[in-house]
This record gives sequence, structure tokens and C-alpha cells, in this order.
Amino acid sequence: MRIEEDFLGKKEIEDTYYGIHTIRATENFPRTNETFDEYFIESYFQIKKACTTLNNKLGYLSNEKSKAIKKACDEKFLYEYIIVDPLSGGAGTSVNMNVNEVIANRATELLGGKLGEYIVDPLQDVNMHQSTNDTFVTAGKMAVIKNLQTLVEKVILLQNEIQKKEKEYYSVKKIARTQLMDAVPILFGQTFGAWADALSRDRWRLYKVEERVRSINLGGTAVGNGVGAPRDYILKIVDELKKVSGVKIAKAENLIDNTQNLDVFVEVHGLLKALSVNLLKISNDIRLLGSGPNTSIGEIILPKIQGGSSIMPGKINPVIPEYVIQLCYSVFAHDSMITNCTANGTLELNHLSPTIVHHTLKSFKYLINSLESLTKYIKLIKVNEKKCRENLEKSTSLLTPLIEEFGHDELSKIIKSNDYVLKDIIKEVSKTFNLTEEEVIEKIDIQNITGLGKK
Amino acid sequence: MRIEEDFLGKKEIEDTYYGIHTIRATENFPRTNETFDEYFIESYFQIKKACTTLNNKLGYLSNEKSKAIKKACDEKFLYEYIIVDPLSGGAGTSVNMNVNEVIANRATELLGGKLGEYIVDPLQDVNMHQSTNDTFVTAGKMAVIKNLQTLVEKVILLQNEIQKKEKEYYSVKKIARTQLMDAVPILFGQTFGAWADALSRDRWRLYKVEERVRSINLGGTAVGNGVGAPRDYILKIVDELKKVSGVKIAKAENLIDNTQNLDVFVEVHGLLKALSVNLLKISNDIRLLGSGPNTSIGEIILPKIQGGSSIMPGKINPVIPEYVIQLCYSVFAHDSMITNCTANGTLELNHLSPTIVHHTLKSFKYLINSLESLTKYIKLIKVNEKKCRENLEKSTSLLTPLIEEFGHDELSKIIKSNDYVLKDIIKEVSKTFNLTEEEVIEKIDIQNITGLGKK
Amino acid sequence: MRIEEDFLGKKEIEDTYYGIHTIRATENFPRTNETFDEYFIESYFQIKKACTTLNNKLGYLSNEKSKAIKKACDEKFLYEYIIVDPLSGGAGTSVNMNVNEVIANRATELLGGKLGEYIVDPLQDVNMHQSTNDTFVTAGKMAVIKNLQTLVEKVILLQNEIQKKEKEYYSVKKIARTQLMDAVPILFGQTFGAWADALSRDRWRLYKVEERVRSINLGGTAVGNGVGAPRDYILKIVDELKKVSGVKIAKAENLIDNTQNLDVFVEVHGLLKALSVNLLKISNDIRLLGSGPNTSIGEIILPKIQGGSSIMPGKINPVIPEYVIQLCYSVFAHDSMITNCTANGTLELNHLSPTIVHHTLKSFKYLINSLESLTKYIKLIKVNEKKCRENLEKSTSLLTPLIEEFGHDELSKIIKSNDYVLKDIIKEVSKTFNLTEEEVIEKIDIQNITGLGKK
Amino acid sequence: MRIEEDFLGKKEIEDTYYGIHTIRATENFPRTNETFDEYFIESYFQIKKACTTLNNKLGYLSNEKSKAIKKACDEKFLYEYIIVDPLSGGAGTSVNMNVNEVIANRATELLGGKLGEYIVDPLQDVNMHQSTNDTFVTAGKMAVIKNLQTLVEKVILLQNEIQKKEKEYYSVKKIARTQLMDAVPILFGQTFGAWADALSRDRWRLYKVEERVRSINLGGTAVGNGVGAPRDYILKIVDELKKVSGVKIAKAENLIDNTQNLDVFVEVHGLLKALSVNLLKISNDIRLLGSGPNTSIGEIILPKIQGGSSIMPGKINPVIPEYVIQLCYSVFAHDSMITNCTANGTLELNHLSPTIVHHTLKSFKYLINSLESLTKYIKLIKVNEKKCRENLEKSTSLLTPLIEEFGHDELSKIIKSNDYVLKDIIKEVSKTFNLTEEEVIEKIDIQNITGLGKK
Repeated sequence: MRIEEDFLGKKEIEDTYYGIHTIRATENFPRTNETFDEYFIESYFQIKKACTTLNNKLGYLSNEKSKAIKKACDEKFLYEYIIVDPLSGGAGTSVNMNVNEVIANRATELLGGKLGEYIVDPLQDVNMHQSTNDTFVTAGKMAVIKNLQTLVEKVILLQNEIQKKEKEYYSVKKIARTQLMDAVPILFGQTFGAWADALSRDRWRLYKVEERVRSINLGGTAVGNGVGAPRDYILKIVDELKKVSGVKIAKAENLIDNTQNLDVFVEVHGLLKALSVNLLKISNDIRLLGSGPNTSIGEIILPKIQGGSSIMPGKINPVIPEYVIQLCYSVFAHDSMITNCTANGTLELNHLSPTIVHHTLKSFKYLINSLESLTKYIKLIKVNEKKCRENLEKSTSLLTPLIEEFGHDELSKIIKSNDYVLKDIIKEVSKTFNLTEEEVIEKIDIQNITGLGKK
Repeated sequence: MRIEEDFLGKKEIEDTYYGIHTIRATENFPRTNETFDEYFIESYFQIKKACTTLNNKLGYLSNEKSKAIKKACDEKFLYEYIIVDPLSGGAGTSVNMNVNEVIANRATELLGGKLGEYIVDPLQDVNMHQSTNDTFVTAGKMAVIKNLQTLVEKVILLQNEIQKKEKEYYSVKKIARTQLMDAVPILFGQTFGAWADALSRDRWRLYKVEERVRSINLGGTAVGNGVGAPRDYILKIVDELKKVSGVKIAKAENLIDNTQNLDVFVEVHGLLKALSVNLLKISNDIRLLGSGPNTSIGEIILPKIQGGSSIMPGKINPVIPEYVIQLCYSVFAHDSMITNCTANGTLELNHLSPTIVHHTLKSFKYLINSLESLTKYIKLIKVNEKKCRENLEKSTSLLTPLIEEFGHDELSKIIKSNDYVLKDIIKEVSKTFNLTEEEVIEKIDIQNITGLGKK
Repeated sequence: MRIEEDFLGKKEIEDTYYGIHTIRATENFPRTNETFDEYFIESYFQIKKACTTLNNKLGYLSNEKSKAIKKACDEKFLYEYIIVDPLSGGAGTSVNMNVNEVIANRATELLGGKLGEYIVDPLQDVNMHQSTNDTFVTAGKMAVIKNLQTLVEKVILLQNEIQKKEKEYYSVKKIARTQLMDAVPILFGQTFGAWADALSRDRWRLYKVEERVRSINLGGTAVGNGVGAPRDYILKIVDELKKVSGVKIAKAENLIDNTQNLDVFVEVHGLLKALSVNLLKISNDIRLLGSGPNTSIGEIILPKIQGGSSIMPGKINPVIPEYVIQLCYSVFAHDSMITNCTANGTLELNHLSPTIVHHTLKSFKYLINSLESLTKYIKLIKVNEKKCRENLEKSTSLLTPLIEEFGHDELSKIIKSNDYVLKDIIKEVSKTFNLTEEEVIEKIDIQNITGLGKK
Repeated sequence: MRIEEDFLGKKEIEDTYYGIHTIRATENFPRTNETFDEYFIESYFQIKKACTTLNNKLGYLSNEKSKAIKKACDEKFLYEYIIVDPLSGGAGTSVNMNVNEVIANRATELLGGKLGEYIVDPLQDVNMHQSTNDTFVTAGKMAVIKNLQTLVEKVILLQNEIQKKEKEYYSVKKIARTQLMDAVPILFGQTFGAWADALSRDRWRLYKVEERVRSINLGGTAVGNGVGAPRDYILKIVDELKKVSGVKIAKAENLIDNTQNLDVFVEVHGLLKALSVNLLKISNDIRLLGSGPNTSIGEIILPKIQGGSSIMPGKINPVIPEYVIQLCYSVFAHDSMITNCTANGTLELNHLSPTIVHHTLKSFKYLINSLESLTKYIKLIKVNEKKCRENLEKSTSLLTPLIEEFGHDELSKIIKSNDYVLKDIIKEVSKTFNLTEEEVIEKIDIQNITGLGKK
């Protein structure tokens, strides 16, 4: 037990790395059970290291303190002492102070001092020339960039897996369905190909958007004009951070704008949402194509990865698509949270930045989870070729090639009056147009029905 | 052409019923193409009539002016002179002033004056003892109550139509599907019954919520403390309005709260959303059950109400469910708009009330449209009993009654190893458990499979 | 280590209470870091206990097994073995099986068996006559009811705290603001009173909605027709559960409807959202009234509960309102998630029920957190009476009582031409209308300005 | 009156340009009062013209018919005969058929025929080689491109206007506010500059996204494989359309993907939402900076464009920001609609495309409205320099430059114990640190307080 004091009073603190501000924060903000993104915390420690390095180089911080701080910044076990809630009020002050206190105490320890003795001071040393308002958003953007790279890799892996299926089942003919109703024949390869091509748009978008996130307000301190920080530090700090972290970032042209306007999170998350849209659609398509297996479409054989019912024997459910769909709806919801919170920032700062940053990073996690699960799942998917053929041969839309010769209206009437039963329709068509049934079937030409347009 | 003037300057105005404030509003707020709910405008005119009546009774307004205003308030042709945009800024000031000016000019005309002469003054007379801040929300709530009554009637009509189908097809056996996968048998009547019972919850909720909307802030004027209005007027005006309009309303206990807090719109719209949830689910169920007709579920025969394809002959699509689904998604979106706007009101007034009121009323319209369309559509739906039987007889979940005797795991393995083909499974079951195939089929007991639990 | 097997194959399992299905689920669904609501898990164990009790009473389950299962159901330390992700696919199958396995293994242990030996079987015994599809939603509703009671208590505590402030500061005069612009005078008590009365609506709504949640589908098993369960069990199980848990529930009239339609979650959550709307509005009002303290409104002195800036000395921020606002926006987002997922359930089951139930319960947690924090915070709030008076005495809207005598337009022009500076305006009014300045000030009558309407 | 017939039966039709399908659609889908975007209808006519031109060139359509159709496509008065509802079911079939019928009848008329005689046939001629499924989405994307260009121009105009204010008021010192609390001094030019730079991001995003929309599925017909259309037509039609319309478009590489996946609308609309986020934030900042004018911030003088109160004399409200905020919240809501509807498309077609396309275009309209209004409004804004100076001189955060010398904690305590009153604080600082008051004030150095960092 030790006693710490700030301008609001004293507090008893156990022997641990965090200090009085952290304690106040945990008392003020009851836990939501949310947890910080690991890249985010890592980035925060990298920021502290970069600032310390530069402050030392420029002569603002002693070699001794600087060395201890930098060592502490590299120690990943300290991350578990970041205990404040990700959704706390104060625009991120609590997590910044938590990081400051943990590093200061650890550095103090490294210099032979006791916890709470603060040979290295959380504010004067660790937070030197910084503010929550520039470090918090910077850490958020760095975590976005790191996550973007992981995400793009995962999109590629899913795309590859789908393209393998595209090749494997390219020439399997099947019925297409528009508005869930039987339409014209296509190839199963085209079905997989459409999914893969949607993902290639996502991949490109996510790859391109990284450059929009690189603009960093570190050095701007409280409102972007660098109050409290020396000019030489302001001009060099982002380059230092780039070196320390290896993340491609650049000093924002307008630090004031960059401190108060977080629209880039809305832009990035809009693309996470677009990816979710495609994943949700693919997942629903799998559910539909795998539905049955006996009394619905049944053209895909769902992977058997866990039992589906405690009552019905042998039941297999599309549990991974269902998992993915739920995470996608979560991403949609995060999107509206992020939008609202970004729009409702006021004047020189966005007071809701914790929600914005946290849920952006949470969406990354959900999408990475989704992509990994779906990739493994699609690998196990098999096409039921027999069912594809049976379905195809029942569909009245096979008559589409005949409309030029016999007229759309005339055929529609025959189909309707025969209750969509193909056999009966062919019979009536042959009668009406004076052909044998074989001649009608030949005109339908099921073997050549799936090329691009008419020859 | 005439000239009108306010404290901001002069304006030329054509010979029409509205005046300078209306003109300014149309210049300030470009049209969104949204249109006012008719009940809303009607209610606004009823408010003006009630205030005039009471102001006259209490001696604040002459008999002559009062008579002219009241006559104007009854003239529905004036509604088309309400030309400001429903989404204008100013918390409703523009529509209140538009109503005031139209009534003042018409009353002036009735008294033999010329348009713009204002024998009856828009502010001093028509708006006497009122503010936008009490009249606007009052008109909104009255329109909600009127719409609620219509809506409940429409819910009842749809429920009735579904219950007719429930009776008609009660005993048709069909396969149930959980997670789109074949599950145990049920009756088609139960399918319709589940839809009907969901709607009966909506009906009850909407019926009950009316009483929450009745609390009215009229008399509170600008912020709820009635500034500018005499006490006798404040105490009696809501009763007067109740009499004039026939709408069951009551004076709010706390006028200040009622002026600034519009959470009751969130409450009511939450129930419109709940209704939309059920309508969307029913619509999707119809799409799924009608899907095919040949290569998917196909247990419902979709009504043929318009051609479905300019290419594929005879194609029929579930266009009404598709229409309803779109309107339901619109209602969901209105809900988030209303939520955001209500939450972001500040201090003594909600400056976003036009969006709140307009979109609440728009949701009513969308739901009334949806209910009417769906009622007509469901009336035309037929069950394809042949397909129901065929599907049922293919389903492996028919084996569910056997698990007690043969074990869940054992049966699951047999089903899996026979690729879910019922014929083959029955063969293997008979072999494994030393029965004839007929004995197995007897155990399945398809005729008695749909009762409540086991006998 | 032990080996377990299901119809999909074998798995190695450590010596722990869960079994093969749980392991598969954790492999299938990567963690989202979400955690189950504790009431939800408690309710799931209560369901297992009730089913076991009844199955034993009706003679379906031996005394010995039954006793062991019931003991296991009472052991809260088992909750930490529920390790599957709350957002898994499969409509809750994984958590149901996780509970089944944990109880079966613990009961086996209590009967002297080894883990994995399954003297008590997870499916045949613990899950007897149940399905995920009835137990999962039942546990969800029970958790809602338990949370509702806590929530209502917390609303009452906040309301009480605000009413104390209402009394304490009742007669402090202050300026009201509509659309953020200076409006007429009110009392500070009225400001607090409006907040309190908004909360009293929430309290009533939440209290009333409990009865809508009581309708329970337990006994319906897979699709609501009780397949696999005996009729005597179906008819009595909800009463048994009511006895076991003490939660007021009742058997749903239509079990099939109640299994597939989860609109009641939309209804309940709509009210959680309404509460959030009021909390967000109150929080924003506190931010505005406390803004400054020197260069903005500054009429409330914000509690000093933590330092606000690592740069600016003495800075205090409204961190609790900021925390609450973020949680409220989260609740809004949960609402759209729940809406989408409920609406997109299909046919006999909602496959997205895990998201629906989880986020409903998460909103409860967020709101309980918010209410607790806000209650403590508001207790510490002080009104800055000096600032209230200063602000009031600067406001030009003090002239409102004069409009009847001097005209709205005339006064507006004087105010405008004197750039809203009250001193100058009074001078010009006195000149224009031939009064002394004292006479004008007397007419303004600041002491009597806040009553209900005019006397 | 004439009679028309399709395969569903006969209908009486008045003498007008649309025909039986249009009539059925208006009967099936009750009006929502939504109206089509004009660019959308124009694009639809351009598509018909391009298809006709190419069909004629390739010899599929006679010169005579072709000439008549092309003439009809150029006649803008026909647009008002497009009477079906934008939100109809059927994935756009109704508007496609409405266009087909109107053009066919008009072309028939031009060829000397009577309405309903169909010398030119709606399906066989006007719709030749087309499907709703390729034309509808194509028209939607063309309208997006046209609107994008207008929108970017409007963003530039607003940005310019703000930059004029930036120049005009560059050097006016003012207090910055973080979390609504007094922070350090900045320049008013920086406030305007931050708004302008946020908009420059929007401008760039919107400019760049155009290329993503250019990928067109025309020629793909029903599902993207061009069924019913000849190969030579498929390969050339998009180039023909580009020529006819002048819109930069290109044939999609994967027509099947492009027919079923509409994620590009989600991508584009995500950027419309990002723009809305910035507009909402700017609007709220104007509301805050203009609040008062006497009892709140009051640093901006709001334009007097309409009277603000029917009760309080001289009241001016920020009506344009309020208007813009409402439209922005509408755009947010459209975004969730579009997201949901795009994600829930199934298999080879998105059945909810009417909602997606309509609300995307509606957001364009709302944003164009918002930008125009806000540009005019900001032009009229004046900065209240006197108020800026008064506010600045009251702020305790002026002490920030002193923390290095006197310590953050020490100063915080002095500020707190003097209740944030600057005069008293300076007195105590001078006493504590043994300086004259003049020396303290000199250290504060208000004249040089707004540069970049410390010199």
C-alpha cells in the first residue's frame, strides 16, 4: 500500500504499476467488460517511446530517465496493467494517464526507485509535450493501419479459397434464382466467381484506404496548435514515431483540423461495413444453397462441423454463416455508433473518441474472426451436383430461349395454365406450335444454355 | 402582388394566402420533396380553432375576428397553401407561421379585407397565446393518435385474413424448417397461426400506447411555463382542443418537461418498428415458402398480380412482400433518425422536432400501405398441398420419433452415412435394428406426427 | 485427458467439466471477447433444474440422477465453465450443450463417476424433453425480467437524486434556452423537474413491460409443438420453472409463435432505448449548463472527480456525462442490431437469437452502469447561482412581457438595432415609448417573471 | 379509353402514354409520396436510346422503329408519365416497364399509330435485349455519377466561402474549447480553417470514388450472362451508352457479380455519410459559437434570415444549421437502409434494389440542398470580435504557459481554490510565487499565445 495525491486529494493504492489517476478512472467508470485492442495499446507504448526518444535527443529529457522509459515501453507484460475501461469519459484521458503511470512506475523501478516514488514522473516526463488529445487519436490510427494489413491478408485468403471452388465446380450447370424464383441456367463456377469478385473490390478498397489514415496529429497537443510543446519537437515527432513503430504515417498538414475532426474513422469504417455487406450476402447465399437438404434448394452440402440439434438426429446447420451474419450485423451497428459519435464532436475536440476508436477496432476483430471462420468453412463445402441437375431439369425458365420464336406472352400463358409443371408445358408447347416433344426439348438445348448471350 | 414587411425587411408577395414568413421559409429551406401528413395539418388547424374559441370565450378576442378565424380553420382547401418543407429548421416555426398566415389572410378575406391587409393578424390574433413550441408538438401528437386508430384497424384486417388461411389450410401437414434446414413436421395452419399471433401482440401494443401520447403541452407556449399566456387560458385550452377535435387528449402534468422531452415519440415509434419486424418476417417467410416454384421450397403458390420478367416467360415474383420489406427497412431507418433527433434535443426545446414528427407520421403511412397491400396479397395466396406432401415425405427428420428407441447418435450416424436420402436410411435402420422396412415406416407414423408432444 | 466421441468423430479433452460439443464450438467460433450476462447463465441452470425436477416427478428420470443434476444446477462455480462465445452460430445450441455437458459431468462426479464417463448423459438426461430452441429463449426472457427489476430500481435512485436537486435549487431563477438561444426566464428547479419527470415515464414503461416478457415457450422443444416431449411435461414445465426460479413467468398460449417470433425483445429494447434517449439528453444538458466555466454558460459547477487535462491546469471535464453518452449511443446501436436480427429470423426459428439476447442484456448492463454513475455524479453537482443571475440579467428576452404593450415587431427592431445589448435597448425603449428607464425595468419585473403564465 | 391485355388478363386504360403493366404496378404498390431522382429517369431514357441505336446498327431493329424510339427518348416531357412508385417491389420491373410503355406509345404515335396500338412494342422493341436487372442498376449508377459531379461542385463552393471567412477573421484571438470546457487560445481563422480542411477531404473522396461506380452490367440481362441477347450486342452496348449519354462508364468485367452485388452503393453512400458527419459537426459548431447571444458563447453573430419566435421579440435562431442537421441525420438513416438492403440481396439478384438506388439518390439531393443553404448562410456569418476578446480574457486556461515554471499540480490547486475566477487566481499566483501581478500577466503573454508550440 502506498498513498498518492493529486489536486483533488489523496488515495491509497496497492503495490502495482498504475497510480492515482487510474484508480480514480476505475471508480468513475464501472466496467463495460469491453477490452482494448492489442494493437492499440502497443501503439500507445510506441508513442511514449518515440516522444521520449525525441525529447532526449532534443535535450528536454535526461539520458537516464529516457533510457528507463524506453525500456519500459518495450515490456509487453505491462499491457495487462492497462485496466481502465475502453469506453470511459474524458476523450481518452484515462487510458493515456494509465499508460503514463504504468510506464513511470516501471521506469522508476528500473532506476532503483519504489512504486509511487516517481523518479520518472507520469506527466512531466512520460507525457512530456503530449496531450491525450494528440496521443489517443494517433494510437487509434496506428492500430487501424496495423489491423488493415491483417484484414487485407484475410480477405485474400478467403478469396483464394472461393476461387479454388470456382475452378473445382466451374462447369456444373445450375439454375439461377432472381427474387428467390427460378430463373435461367448458369454455372456453379459463376456463383463462386461472383463472390470472389465482390471480395476483390473489398480488398482493393481496404488496400487503398490505408493512405487516408496516415495523417497524424501527434505534436498538436491539446487542440492542435502544439501548446506546451517546443517547435522543434512538433516538427520532428511524427517522423520519430514512424521510425520507432515502423508504421507508415505522416504529420497532418492541419493539426487543428486533425485533432477535432475524426471523419477518417467514418471513411474507413464505411469500408469495413461494405466488406460486411458482402460477407453477409455470401453467408446468406450459402444458407440458401445449402437449405434442406431434402425439402429446399440443397445444391450445396454443408460441412458437418458440429451437431445441429439435441432433438433431431443428423441435423446439420449452417453455423458458421450464422456466426458471420451476426458479426456483420454488429459491424453495421458499430457503424452507426461511430457515425453518431464522430458527427457529434464539438468545437476543438471530439469528446466521444473512445467509442469511435474502440468500435472501429472491434469491427476489425469481428471481420478477421469472420474471414478466418468462413475460409475454413468454404474449404469444406461440396457442391451437390446431382441436386443441381435435378433442379435444373425441373425449371420452366428453361423455356427462355424459345421466346424469340414463340413470343413471351404466348409462352407465359402456357406456363401459367400448366401450373409451372415442365412436362405438361412441353406437351402443350409441342401441340400449340406443331412440333414433336423432342423438337421442343432440342430447342431448349440444355447443354448450351450457359454461354455469354446468344451465339 | 403585395408588399409585406417584418423586422428583417420587405418582400413582394403574390396574391395568395400565405405571407412574408412563409416566403422567407421557402427561400431558406430548399424543398426535400417530403410532404406533410394530412392528419398533422388538420390537427394544426384544429388547434388554431380551439385557441380562437377559448380566447374569444375568455374575452381576449372579438366575436367578429373569432368567427372569421374559426370559419377559416374549417376550410380544408386551405391545406394546400401549407407549402413550407416538413424538414425545415426552426423547430416548426415555419409551418406554424404558414398556418397562421393562411388563416389570417383567409379570415381577413372573410371579413371583407384584402390579402395582406391583415384585419386578422397572424401573430396577435391567430397565434394568440401560442408558440410554435407548444402547437407543433401538440399537432404531432394528435396526428399520431389519429394514425394509431387507422393503423390498429389495418392490423386487425391483416390478422383476420391470415386467420382465414389458418382455418382453410389448418390440417395440411408440412415440414418445419429451423435455420433453413429440414426439421420436424407441423401443420400449415400453425404456420399461419404463428403469423396471426405475432400480429395480435402488435395490435395490443398499439392499442395500449395511445394513452401515452395523450399528454399535451398546449398552453405552455415557448418553454412550458406559459409565458405570454393568461392563466385561465392555460388551464382550459387542452379541454377546449379535445372538444374541438374529438381527440382524447389531456393537459400534461409538467408542461416544461413535455415541451423539451419528446421521448414519447421514441416509445411509439419503437412499437411501429416492432410491427415492421413482424411484417418483414412474414414477408420473408412468404418469399421462402413461395420460392421456386420448382427448384426450391414451393409450398405456397404466389399470387399472379403482375408479370415478373421482361425476359423469362411466366415468371412471377413475390412483389408485394418485396414492397413491404422495403417499407419496413425504411421504418427501421426512421427509428434511428427519430432516436438520434430526440436524444439530441437540448435544454428547454428539441430543435429537431420537425424530423421526429415527420418521420413518425411517415412510418404510419408506410405501415398502413404495407398492411393494405399484404392483406390483399395474402387473400390470394394458395397452399400447394401436393408440394407440402412431397417435401414432407423426403425429410429425414421424420425419424425424430425413433430417437428414444434407437438413440440420437446411432440414428445420426446412419443418416450421415446415407447422405440424407430417406429411402436408403430406412433400409439401413431396418437392417441395423432388425425390423422390416414397413415396421420402420409405421414407427415414423406420419399421420400422427403433428400433435402437441407425445401422447 | 480423455477421449469423447460424437457422430462427427473423436476429440481429446482435458479434465474439465465441459465436453466434446463445447470443444467443437470453441474451435468453430473464435472469441469475440463478449461475455455472457450472469443472470442469463443463472437462468439456464434454473431451467435445467426445473426440467429435471419435473422429469423426475413424472417418472421420466431416476431419483438418483435427478438429485445429482439438481445439486449441480445449484453450484454457481460451474458458471465459469461456460466458455463458448455468446455470439456463436447455431441459435444457441453451443451454450445449451455447454450447460448440458457441464452439469452432466458434475452430476456424474457427484455420483462417483469420472469426467467424461457420463453416468448422467448431457442429452438424454440433462437436456431431456428440451431443445435449444425453447431453453435458450426462455433463459433470455428470464434474464430480461431479472434485469428489468434491477434497472427500475436504478432509475428510481437517479430520479430521487434529481428531485433532491429540484428541491434544493427550486427558486433559483435562470434563463431558459430554446435552440441554444436565450429565451425566457424559468426556475432551476423546473430544469431538474423536467429531467425527473422524463425519468418517471421511463420507470413506468419499464415496470409495465415486464408482463409482456413473461410468455414462455419452454416445453415447445424444437419448433413449438413439443416434439419429443410428453404432453404432461409440456403442460406443467413452465409452472415448475416459475417455482424453481421465483420468476413470474407463464406458458405462452401459442408455443409455435413464441418460438419463432422474438418481437418482444424489440419491444423491450425499444424502451431501453427510450431511457437512453432521456439519459443522453440529460447528460448533454449537464455538459451545456456546466460548459465554460468562464466563457460559456457555466450555470452548473461540475463535480471534480478526476483531473481533466495533462496540459491545462485545473481543467475539469464532464467525464461522467461523456461516459453515459457513449453507452447510450451503444444502446442505440444494439437496438438496430436487435431489430435487424429479429426481423430476419426465418420460418420456424430465429437463427440470430444469440445476438438478440446478448445485446438486449448488454444494454441492461450499460444502462445500469450509466444510472449508477450519473446518480453519484448528480449528487455532487452544484448550481452556480451567481452565474445564473448574471446570465439572466443580460438577456434581452426579459423584454417578452412588454410585447403586449409595445408590439412584437417594434421591440424586435429595437433589439436588433442595438445589437442585443440590454442596457442600450432599455435606453431606446424608454426614449421611444416616453418612459424613464426605471419604469421600463419595472415593467420587466424580473422578480415575478417565472410564474405559470400571466396573472 | 382503350383495352390492353397481358397474360394475367385485360385492363381498361385512359388515353395516356403508359400501359397495362404500369397500371398494375400503381394498383399493387400504394404511393409512398417518394419521387424519382430526375437524373435517374433521364438515364433510363438514355439507356433505351443507346440500346435502340445499337440494335438498329446491328440489324435487330428496323430504321423506322428505331428512329421513332430515339426521338421519344429525347422528349423530356415524357418523364412525367413515369408514375410508378420508386419503392415498388419487383427489383425495378415496374419502372422499367413504365419507361418501356411510355416510349413505345410515344413512338407508336410518332409513327402515326394510336396509343395502345403498339406499332412499337414495349417488350420486343423498346426493351429488346434488355432486362430490368441490367437496366435498372445501370440507370442508378449513371445517376450517381451525374450527382457526384454536382455534389463535388457544391462542396467546393462551401469550402471557398469558409476560406473567405478564414481570411477575413484570421487573426481574431479566441478561446478554444475541448469537451465544451475552456481550453487554450487559438485564432478564429484556425476554426474556419479546420472546417474547410475537413471539407477538402470530402471533396477528394467524392472525386475519387466516381471511378468505382463506372463499372456497368448493361448487356448482362437477367442474371449477368446475357441470356436472350446476342453476343455482338453484349460486347458493344456499354460503349454505345457512353456515347449517347456522355457519362464515363465501362463494361463490368464480371457481369454476373455486377448484377447481384451492389456493394458499390454502400461504398459511395459511406462517403455521403462522411460528408454529412462533417456538415453536422460544422452546423453544431455554428450553433454553439452563435449560442446566446448574451448568456452563452456568442462569438458568432447568427445571420438574421427569418424571425425566430412568435413570442420572444428579436429572437434569431440558427435555422439553417438546424435544417442541415436534420438532413444529415436523414442521410445517416439512409445509410443503414442501404446497408441492410444491399446485404440482404440473395443469390443472382438484389430484390431490394429500388430502396438502395432511391435512397442513395435522395441523400445526394439532401446534401446538395444542405450545401447550398449552408454556403449562403456562412457568407452572412459575422464574428463578434468583442465577445471573443471578453471570453478570452476570462479564461483560466491562459495560465497554461506557466505550468513549466510553477508546476501543473500547484497551479491546479490555486485555480480550484479560487473557483476559477481569473482575477483572484492571478492575485494568489503573484503572492505564492513572489511576483507582482503585472509580472504574472506578462508571463501569460496573451498577445503571443497562439503560435505553433513554444518558440
